[in-house]
Amino acid sequence: MEKKEERTELEKLGEFGLIEHLTKGFSLTNNSTALGIGDDAALIDAGDHYQVVSTDVLVEGIHFDMSYFPLKHLGYKAVAVNVSDIAAMNATPEQVLISLAISNRFSVQALETFYAGVQQACADFKLDLVGGDTSSSAGGLFISVTAIGKVAKDKVSKRGGAKGKDILCATGDLGAAYMGLQVLAREKQVFMANPNMQPQLDKYEYLVGRQLKPTARMDIIYELDELGVVPTSMIDISDGLASELLHLSKQSGLGLRIFEDKLPIDNQTYETAVEFGLDPITCVLNGGEDYELLFTITQNDFEKLEKHRDIHFIGYMDETDKEAGLVTKNESWIPLKAQGWNHFGKEGNV
Amino acid sequence: MEKKEERTELEKLGEFGLIEHLTKGFSLTNNSTALGIGDDAALIDAGDHYQVVSTDVLVEGIHFDMSYFPLKHLGYKAVAVNVSDIAAMNATPEQVLISLAISNRFSVQALETFYAGVQQACADFKLDLVGGDTSSSAGGLFISVTAIGKVAKDKVSKRGGAKGKDILCATGDLGAAYMGLQVLAREKQVFMANPNMQPQLDKYEYLVGRQLKPTARMDIIYELDELGVVPTSMIDISDGLASELLHLSKQSGLGLRIFEDKLPIDNQTYETAVEFGLDPITCVLNGGEDYELLFTITQNDFEKLEKHRDIHFIGYMDETDKEAGLVTKNESWIPLKAQGWNHFGKEGNV
Repeated sequence: MEKKEERTELEKLGEFGLIEHLTKGFSLTNNSTALGIGDDAALIDAGDHYQVVSTDVLVEGIHFDMSYFPLKHLGYKAVAVNVSDIAAMNATPEQVLISLAISNRFSVQALETFYAGVQQACADFKLDLVGGDTSSSAGGLFISVTAIGKVAKDKVSKRGGAKGKDILCATGDLGAAYMGLQVLAREKQVFMANPNMQPQLDKYEYLVGRQLKPTARMDIIYELDELGVVPTSMIDISDGLASELLHLSKQSGLGLRIFEDKLPIDNQTYETAVEFGLDPITCVLNGGEDYELLFTITQNDFEKLEKHRDIHFIGYMDETDKEAGLVTKNESWIPLKAQGWNHFGKEGNV
Repeated sequence: MEKKEERTELEKLGEFGLIEHLTKGFSLTNNSTALGIGDDAALIDAGDHYQVVSTDVLVEGIHFDMSYFPLKHLGYKAVAVNVSDIAAMNATPEQVLISLAISNRFSVQALETFYAGVQQACADFKLDLVGGDTSSSAGGLFISVTAIGKVAKDKVSKRGGAKGKDILCATGDLGAAYMGLQVLAREKQVFMANPNMQPQLDKYEYLVGRQLKPTARMDIIYELDELGVVPTSMIDISDGLASELLHLSKQSGLGLRIFEDKLPIDNQTYETAVEFGLDPITCVLNGGEDYELLFTITQNDFEKLEKHRDIHFIGYMDETDKEAGLVTKNESWIPLKAQGWNHFGKEGNV
């Protein structure tokens, strides 16, 4: 007789819960391991500095849809999202390794286009491609990227370093990549219903660009260094602002509050959200794929960044309260909830 | 009118040719990049030592068949094959990152089993699991592993360091993992034809173990260090001895000769090859997945290794001739050809 085995579905735990669950029995034993799982990147003690290592996978049908994602942009994005993780440690990326599993429906020319995007990203972020692996695939395109960077030991920014009253800063604007995805998904539906229809994307150029051509904010990392500011904590905004704020709050052991009227949102994002019947603030909080930086600074450093055109002061860490919440325009308090992607749940992001 | 685009199939270039083709336009610009693509691992200059980085992908239906590959062994193997690459640089592995793309047909319990294998490998090879990424997958299981190690600058062994008259050494025995795969594939066919048949594996236990539970020869790396031997060149035997010999020959710019009667083969491998109507020497030369080490030593170091129970002296580098070949028992000369896997070709290895 067959033994009935217990079965828990992956979606029950979600991505973060799953990783935590699967790795809880592991311990760190090597002296050179300065930081393991649970931040944007791992830290390896290399003597006078840390090597910083981060890895990400991009899966066809989950992270991208080949029907509207140009291969060159995909190559660029695969590198950029990893650079973003290195940036989030206040580090400088230097090497990258790229592995692919590819089905035979791709031609050599298609891969050349993908690598042209990789090469552009390597040039933009001053990276050397030093390795990888290539395999065939029976089901779709898989991309795995590992980026390696370097940071002086006294310059590293972790998620858990924020102190009470530190100021919360977000770069760029948020929610645009998510709205870009909504636009692309709608135009795909229109096209599938009637292949003679041309996609109407002009009006949404910024949003679509944010989805298809994300960049990593190394410019901010270099500027912070020039200005003599070391963020007390930092994380990149990949799963949505709310999710990242909760990581900073939990790992720093502090509450925090952000203010609705301080959240950076582009006009096109706002207007398109309204057009789609979505709440713009929800898009900002839970959209994902912004690849901007969220960080905290001491109040003493505020002056140095006050006039920066692209750094927004959205709130502060709160030592008096462990809760993380949003103060709305009419001064009500809304506790933050992570509604980032759960790849294993019913709703994917494609 | 649609423009007719040129299309070259992936299989035309093969795995090594494809990587070479796609990365030929890339250059190395960072001072910290000591060695890029083209060896078992990349080298990053970390001051007084190198960080060594290697990455591999394992794809369901290409590298493993879930119908006979136990998940725990798969977790172990995913780590071991990367450790083998670090070993091949004469380095010590210290950290590992594991990324998975998993379809919903896997349960949390199945992944726990996979991670139990990962944990066993981390314990055996003294590795810390420091990162990774987890995603869902629309098509099959995809595993990407990155291993990071360390080596003193004067101890590193690259593929291209062999000198004329250096002695070629191979560890363990070869061809067994390949024959294990043949056995598993045959038993699967029998089982599919008649599900009441129990697989007959007892007789092939060693071979099946070599396929399902490969290890990495870190024991050899530690012993070489104790004996004061730094291999002049080294590579791990993953794609078949012939393929690896050709890498050493090409990258060292020398010919080489190996001797049929010196090739290490287990009795079970020999007998099973004969049973399957295969030439045992072909299995040794082209089987793949041995994860043993192939290296060269100077003649001066021969004495130190002469009595080693598991290091076999299979031939020597030849500066008088650029050819790589096998001297048979009856003293004829057979040029070596790489017949390692071409994932993109018609014949996969599953």
